[in-house]
Amino acid sequence: MFDPVEKLKEFIRHPSVSADPAFKAGMQGALDFTTGLLASIGFDVEVVKTDLHPIIMASRGTNPAWPHVIIYGHYDVQPADPLHLWQSPAFEPEIRGNRLYGRGAADNKGPLMVHIAAVARLLERRPDLPLRITFMIEGEEEMGSPSFPKFLAAYGDRLKQADLVYLSDTLLPSEDQVVITCGLRGLVLCDVVVTGPKSDLHSGLHGGVLRNPIQAIAELCASLHNPDGSVNIPGFYDDVMPVEPWEKEEIKKLGADAEAYRKFLGIPAFYTAKGATPFEATRVLPTLEFNGIGGGYQGEGTKTVIPSKAFVKLSCRLVANQKPAVIRDLLYKTISERMPSDVTFEIIDQHQGVPYVVVPPDRTNTPPDQSPVLANAFRAADQAIAAVFGKPPLYLREGGSVPIIADIKRMTGLDSVMIGLFLPEDNLHAPNESFNLDVMAKGMRASERILEAIADR
Amino acid sequence: MFDPVEKLKEFIRHPSVSADPAFKAGMQGALDFTTGLLASIGFDVEVVKTDLHPIIMASRGTNPAWPHVIIYGHYDVQPADPLHLWQSPAFEPEIRGNRLYGRGAADNKGPLMVHIAAVARLLERRPDLPLRITFMIEGEEEMGSPSFPKFLAAYGDRLKQADLVYLSDTLLPSEDQVVITCGLRGLVLCDVVVTGPKSDLHSGLHGGVLRNPIQAIAELCASLHNPDGSVNIPGFYDDVMPVEPWEKEEIKKLGADAEAYRKFLGIPAFYTAKGATPFEATRVLPTLEFNGIGGGYQGEGTKTVIPSKAFVKLSCRLVANQKPAVIRDLLYKTISERMPSDVTFEIIDQHQGVPYVVVPPDRTNTPPDQSPVLANAFRAADQAIAAVFGKPPLYLREGGSVPIIADIKRMTGLDSVMIGLFLPEDNLHAPNESFNLDVMAKGMRASERILEAIADR
Repeated sequence: MFDPVEKLKEFIRHPSVSADPAFKAGMQGALDFTTGLLASIGFDVEVVKTDLHPIIMASRGTNPAWPHVIIYGHYDVQPADPLHLWQSPAFEPEIRGNRLYGRGAADNKGPLMVHIAAVARLLERRPDLPLRITFMIEGEEEMGSPSFPKFLAAYGDRLKQADLVYLSDTLLPSEDQVVITCGLRGLVLCDVVVTGPKSDLHSGLHGGVLRNPIQAIAELCASLHNPDGSVNIPGFYDDVMPVEPWEKEEIKKLGADAEAYRKFLGIPAFYTAKGATPFEATRVLPTLEFNGIGGGYQGEGTKTVIPSKAFVKLSCRLVANQKPAVIRDLLYKTISERMPSDVTFEIIDQHQGVPYVVVPPDRTNTPPDQSPVLANAFRAADQAIAAVFGKPPLYLREGGSVPIIADIKRMTGLDSVMIGLFLPEDNLHAPNESFNLDVMAKGMRASERILEAIADR
Repeated sequence: MFDPVEKLKEFIRHPSVSADPAFKAGMQGALDFTTGLLASIGFDVEVVKTDLHPIIMASRGTNPAWPHVIIYGHYDVQPADPLHLWQSPAFEPEIRGNRLYGRGAADNKGPLMVHIAAVARLLERRPDLPLRITFMIEGEEEMGSPSFPKFLAAYGDRLKQADLVYLSDTLLPSEDQVVITCGLRGLVLCDVVVTGPKSDLHSGLHGGVLRNPIQAIAELCASLHNPDGSVNIPGFYDDVMPVEPWEKEEIKKLGADAEAYRKFLGIPAFYTAKGATPFEATRVLPTLEFNGIGGGYQGEGTKTVIPSKAFVKLSCRLVANQKPAVIRDLLYKTISERMPSDVTFEIIDQHQGVPYVVVPPDRTNTPPDQSPVLANAFRAADQAIAAVFGKPPLYLREGGSVPIIADIKRMTGLDSVMIGLFLPEDNLHAPNESFNLDVMAKGMRASERILEAIADR
């Protein structure tokens, strides 16, 4: 059995920045390292070519009677700049206190190493473990997984044979409180471009005769929320999944401090819809946000112009049961109805993503319709985490969107068990990223137990 | 007596682009050309140094009993690019048909030459003309006259001895219809910057708990107009000078075609305040315009961010009797009252300019309180223009702002008689700028008569 911390250091030394072509050697190094490590613990490794960075598929166990777990991870990392803010070089791992510093330590090389080491230990102890395991490790996660849908289309039939996806690429609120993420929001994104006059105009010579496209955009945007903070699009909330009492309880158990959160955001006051607490608002309610707005002169000083065009970039985050196509239609209809007839406008489709939700089997009075293997995996996780971390996990939906999780569900029917292993202070995507070695050790013990329990049913 | 068209060609050959340091020699050439020409017709020439381009002060006549006219003009021109769109080189004047092409032909070298030639002819015919004339010719007009206020502060006492300012740097709607511009709008400009969270946020993780600064800016902007197009700032219209029937009549006499104007702007419909026609709206009503807006991600595709900041650049155009300081206070008070308490904001002062108005003496039943020399100048212009162009001039306020005219009024008390001499098709500030030689010839005849009538009273 290898030393997981030493192996993680070796993994970090490969600078696998997927978004930057200058790091080609680092990507190849991380790929070779991962395939080598998986082969060394007895896996059959396949490297699946994509348009950019390959996806690793590595499996052990062929008995179709055995449960089958797909372990997801990624070997690519975020760029490390600004480099001068790092206390030790980003790609030269260094342990200080109980933390291992380096780019990718927490996102996602450390958590992925947790599961590889857990599998290695488990198989060393029980070489005949009745469990099929497939590692599915991509190299484009930090770029938005552009090759993943094509891969899913090609490999979907094979993936369908599995029982569940198992991964750690989400947050743990504190060292002793694990969260199992059981929902992610979906997305509908579009741009609205308003055109007033056919070219920019002098605001003195022509000001007062026409509606400025910035005014039209502002009036549209201002109309999209009610004074109570809710989204003012008729029908927007119709399909929203009701929040069950168990879920409100989980959010309360999180024990998060609203005042500390307010200070972290740096805002004078919260502004949520429908009287929700801030911790409910991001998890169980949909939103409409403005991601960008632009028009006219934006430089220093003044330019007295009436611009020809102004635009806004909108995004809706959707929660369970909401359908992107339905929300898109409601949004476009609302925009079209509200736009005044003295300007012209265009709505430009951006992408969409379906929301994701999986319900843990024992929290609700109406048991979800899910496979016994998945239900067993949740129970195994619950017990193993309680035993190792000292507290049972919380089951929370998160406000973000991880399109691949919803895509896997849509293309293969597989649900995901997402066990958070990085802490808020791990500085993901920032300088001085690190991974807590105590969490790493506990994560390996818990993961070993979880996988064993899934095998033994 | 020199040949005015040949002299204008010589003037144009000096590439006097004030904004571009590469044209230093052209600026010097145009300066030397102008001072030489004025000296050659008997003027005492003074070159007043400024921080950048000198101002020419050239005078004749010293008898304090004589009326005193200041003739304003500028020897600098706009940049000529894009050069490839010119049919003949910008600084190689060429006559095609009845037009002289070249950068500065219409703005302002041609109209200035009209008055220099008129003065030259008049003084040749009447060397003892009882009129004091001062040419005040600047070299920074196309840069916004940055040195002019300082010049006015130093030379104001001397300028106060004059009776009026006389210039041609405004528009003539058609070859036979001269307009005397008798009003210009003032300005109040500011930026409003709204801050939400202290840094940009992930719109998934945090969307739904706070007011997006783009939403706050949009709500503010949307609140600043009423559905009828008027500005929704309490007290905004309180000081607006009532429009007299004679002025409505002048606007009607302009005979401008609203449908042609709508097509020129390329808008589906007009949008004016208080039921005004578009031709009234720009001339007699104040406005609030949005010159620029920005915040968040403005690139291609999407970035799901909640920005920390968003801003808008606002400008109000003010009409006669409105005071910039009063409007500024009303605007700032309105912004402050309407901004929600869950964001912070800052208002950044930009510049201000007072509106300008001068009332022609014989159009109104309530004669304006003005000097007999000024009233006589208007009457002289009316008669001379009617005789030479075949129609009396129209007296119209314009929507633009020419800060130096209001500054001269404010610092010296002098009013301006502004006689439009360039046509819409003269392509000011654009490639293939030209000056109509028939307008030039008529302009010289009219100007000669006007100056003679001012002298003879």
